[in-house]
Amino acid sequence: MPRRREPRTAGNRNIRLTIEYDGTDFSGWQRQANARTVQECLEGAVEKVTGERVRLTGAGRTDAGVHAEGQVANFRTGSSLSTERLLAAINANLDPDVAVVSAEEAPVDFDANRDAVAKVYRYTISTRPVRPVLERRFVHRSKFPLDTEAVRRAARRFVGRHDFNSFRAEGRVEKNTVRTIERIDFEETPGTLRIRFTGDGFLYMMVRIIVGTLLEVGRGRLAPGDIPDIIAAGDRRAAGPTAPAQGLCLVEVRY
Amino acid sequence: MPRRREPRTAGNRNIRLTIEYDGTDFSGWQRQANARTVQECLEGAVEKVTGERVRLTGAGRTDAGVHAEGQVANFRTGSSLSTERLLAAINANLDPDVAVVSAEEAPVDFDANRDAVAKVYRYTISTRPVRPVLERRFVHRSKFPLDTEAVRRAARRFVGRHDFNSFRAEGRVEKNTVRTIERIDFEETPGTLRIRFTGDGFLYMMVRIIVGTLLEVGRGRLAPGDIPDIIAAGDRRAAGPTAPAQGLCLVEVRY
Repeated sequence: MPRRREPRTAGNRNIRLTIEYDGTDFSGWQRQANARTVQECLEGAVEKVTGERVRLTGAGRTDAGVHAEGQVANFRTGSSLSTERLLAAINANLDPDVAVVSAEEAPVDFDANRDAVAKVYRYTISTRPVRPVLERRFVHRSKFPLDTEAVRRAARRFVGRHDFNSFRAEGRVEKNTVRTIERIDFEETPGTLRIRFTGDGFLYMMVRIIVGTLLEVGRGRLAPGDIPDIIAAGDRRAAGPTAPAQGLCLVEVRY
Repeated sequence: MPRRREPRTAGNRNIRLTIEYDGTDFSGWQRQANARTVQECLEGAVEKVTGERVRLTGAGRTDAGVHAEGQVANFRTGSSLSTERLLAAINANLDPDVAVVSAEEAPVDFDANRDAVAKVYRYTISTRPVRPVLERRFVHRSKFPLDTEAVRRAARRFVGRHDFNSFRAEGRVEKNTVRTIERIDFEETPGTLRIRFTGDGFLYMMVRIIVGTLLEVGRGRLAPGDIPDIIAAGDRRAAGPTAPAQGLCLVEVRY
């Protein structure tokens, strides 16, 4: 049985996972020393199940406090467990605030990060006068009433292909700061505003800085017509503040 | 100023509050020794704001772990603070898992418990194969696939005026066990089933025992046609198990 002699980490299967997590008690996706991260929890669960020390490649490196309904990651394994068994066994080894929603066989060269063609993020804002209770872990509460019509008009100016250098935080090396936002959709219910961003990729903190800028428009400190100038400035200081992590959720990754 | 000489608890105003809470970390609504309850937290917040030791009368004595979006309670006060100021100040003295949504002036004889004419409860069941993460505090996960069409047919047999003695837990003295369920509504989305009960009143644990019985129907251990016999039995042992508290939410109280 020569196959058994191969190092168990050099597996010939490539498994694609779809992952859901409540980011509140995580220091983000990416593994780091002395912090509880989603990547580390998942790699630990996979190791318990397969006996292999695997490395997960995630599609989006969500920050501390950011949630996910549809994060995607892949890992290589020599395990012979079916995807159904892997799914159940990995979930049995995870805390209640993270779960694998699906596990599928992927082509051997599939890379969850490199092959992503679009990502969808949703940002949720509570606009009701009283702080939210049931949704409190997943929304940002605006302490100001918002002119949501002005927010919608401002959002339209972001759609398209732009250099988003004004909407990028320091902390990651990103040589090319041009991205395309395919669409921005709104869902408004009494007391809640959800903004959904679909794009080919987002710079570090880009969605949160765009939302922070839209909130400035919503409270009347910026006008929708200011957005093109802020984009053209190419300077982080021209944009609004960074909106809090807890309102953000990675909804979907497309391939 | 003789008004100041009156005992401050014997106020001549009656304030009606609508209250929202995440029941996960409460030992229910009703004040009890050595336990964190919603009533106690609210009474403590009102005392800090008004300087009065008040007694809140709640519409529904929700159990440990049960949530509320629309609990109603009233208290008497001699405070001269406006309802707007009361609302903001009480909320500033409450933990993040409970908030007063509205505070209104009520007629002096209004009693939130006695005057309720209908209550609406919602029970949420997750039916997806993987345990829920983002909704985990507010849903009961069914580990079995459910025949939701059979559940709907069974639910119809509960609507109307019945003696619900089979659907009542020990623990409270309730001489009259006849109640009217006005309607039972369903909201089904992929992976989630919400059942909404509207009635003139519910016995202790009644909604959870009805849901536990409906789940037995959903997994095929009881048939919709068994429901009338279970009601007629007048015996708790004829009904299904009590569904877990965390799926239940007091949505609305009508007057």
